Amino acid sequence: MRLILVTGANRGIGFELVKQFLERSNPPEKIFATCRNPDGAQELKNLASRHPNLVIVQLEVTDPVSIKAAAARVEGLLKGSGLHLLINNAGIVKKTTLEAETPEYMSQVYATNTTGPLVISQAFLPLLKKAVQESAQKGLSCSKAAIINMSSEAGSIKNVLAWEFGQVVSYRCSKAALNMLTKCQSLAYRELGILCIALHPGWLQTTMGNTGGYQAPMTVDEGVRGIINTLSKLSEKETGAFINWEGNLLPW
Amino acid sequence: MRLILVTGANRGIGFELVKQFLERSNPPEKIFATCRNPDGAQELKNLASRHPNLVIVQLEVTDPVSIKAAAARVEGLLKGSGLHLLINNAGIVKKTTLEAETPEYMSQVYATNTTGPLVISQAFLPLLKKAVQESAQKGLSCSKAAIINMSSEAGSIKNVLAWEFGQVVSYRCSKAALNMLTKCQSLAYRELGILCIALHPGWLQTTMGNTGGYQAPMTVDEGVRGIINTLSKLSEKETGAFINWEGNLLPW
Repeated sequence: MRLILVTGANRGIGFELVKQFLERSNPPEKIFATCRNPDGAQELKNLASRHPNLVIVQLEVTDPVSIKAAAARVEGLLKGSGLHLLINNAGIVKKTTLEAETPEYMSQVYATNTTGPLVISQAFLPLLKKAVQESAQKGLSCSKAAIINMSSEAGSIKNVLAWEFGQVVSYRCSKAALNMLTKCQSLAYRELGILCIALHPGWLQTTMGNTGGYQAPMTVDEGVRGIINTLSKLSEKETGAFINWEGNLLPW
Repeated sequence: MRLILVTGANRGIGFELVKQFLERSNPPEKIFATCRNPDGAQELKNLASRHPNLVIVQLEVTDPVSIKAAAARVEGLLKGSGLHLLINNAGIVKKTTLEAETPEYMSQVYATNTTGPLVISQAFLPLLKKAVQESAQKGLSCSKAAIINMSSEAGSIKNVLAWEFGQVVSYRCSKAALNMLTKCQSLAYRELGILCIALHPGWLQTTMGNTGGYQAPMTVDEGVRGIINTLSKLSEKETGAFINWEGNLLPW
């Protein structure tokens, strides 16, 4: 996992992913941390001042023009190399009940959590393909070329995780749809050599995870440690699957 | 199933549902057939001229104002009675590949296929609750109060029906999300006495089913005959489930 891009990297799980990747004994050659507003991303800027292999890139996931510009910039910075690992992490939630759900929430959450990963994956596909061409590895892996879509067990139609803590129907629908997108990507991109996974990061103590006035059960540090360990082990056996931070399969 | 509403009833599965309900030996007291443009719905108008219990109602599923107006009109026509069966049938598909999918398609298809059923169910909920209050039946059933969301096995993340015939990612994502909506509705409305089901009607020879230059495997007549038979048998055991026209369980 030498050349990595993480969206929504200014805080929460995205920020912790970037931080822990940089702290590894074998850190990435380059990691692109995208966020809507780089000027306001103070923690990322502090991290970048200590790690020259971290590049902060402006990217608004609901804006195709911004996505294209980000892909062009990353392509330039890669100087002919491909991208190994695209982590579609950016996401939002609207705290609502089924009764109070609105078309505006449905549309906004879907645009960010589902359509965003679709359009970003389309834009970075040429760089993922390039990584496959450069690789001598057989099979599929995150060190060859992979799309990781940050999903949630709250979007498991079977499990409907934490219904009693928040109905958040627009969020659940967007994540079920993201799981479907992941499955479609896996079917279309398997032959290209690209691994596609829907990942439940665990219910972590982030701003999003702690909404509703209670504390999420796991620290961000612990969850992200599990995620990176799991990513390093993924193979073609898992492509198209929905797994958690420990690599265990989840039901759709 | 005495008082019924079907959306997208001007053609295809919606029209056939209305027609077959009216042709039953024990037809509904009133069936509300909604469509975007009643003036252009010639087949519905012909049917209504022979069946005074059929009422055509204007309803655009992506327009909350139109939905509210339709609910108010139906409430007036019901003269104090509740609604037993709400069939969210209206849906669209955009024939695209994963590569050619766009934010506009994603947004339009989701607004119609997922957000539409959400908002319509919210608007008709008071009438469904009224039907529960009027009923002496125990348990859940379509003759007491039910929301049937017309889904598709193309939206089963496990099965991804007919991938080789059309990727239609925006459609698949919208139907996976509709399945999640159905599950959420079943959790929220079970206590209210309302049955909620995601239904795969079969791959039928409609304008939608026949897109792509080949013929779907089943006639609309046969599929809808199965659907009505299945609806009449549903109970609290099935609420929150994803079933096909024969009543068989499908995987999410």
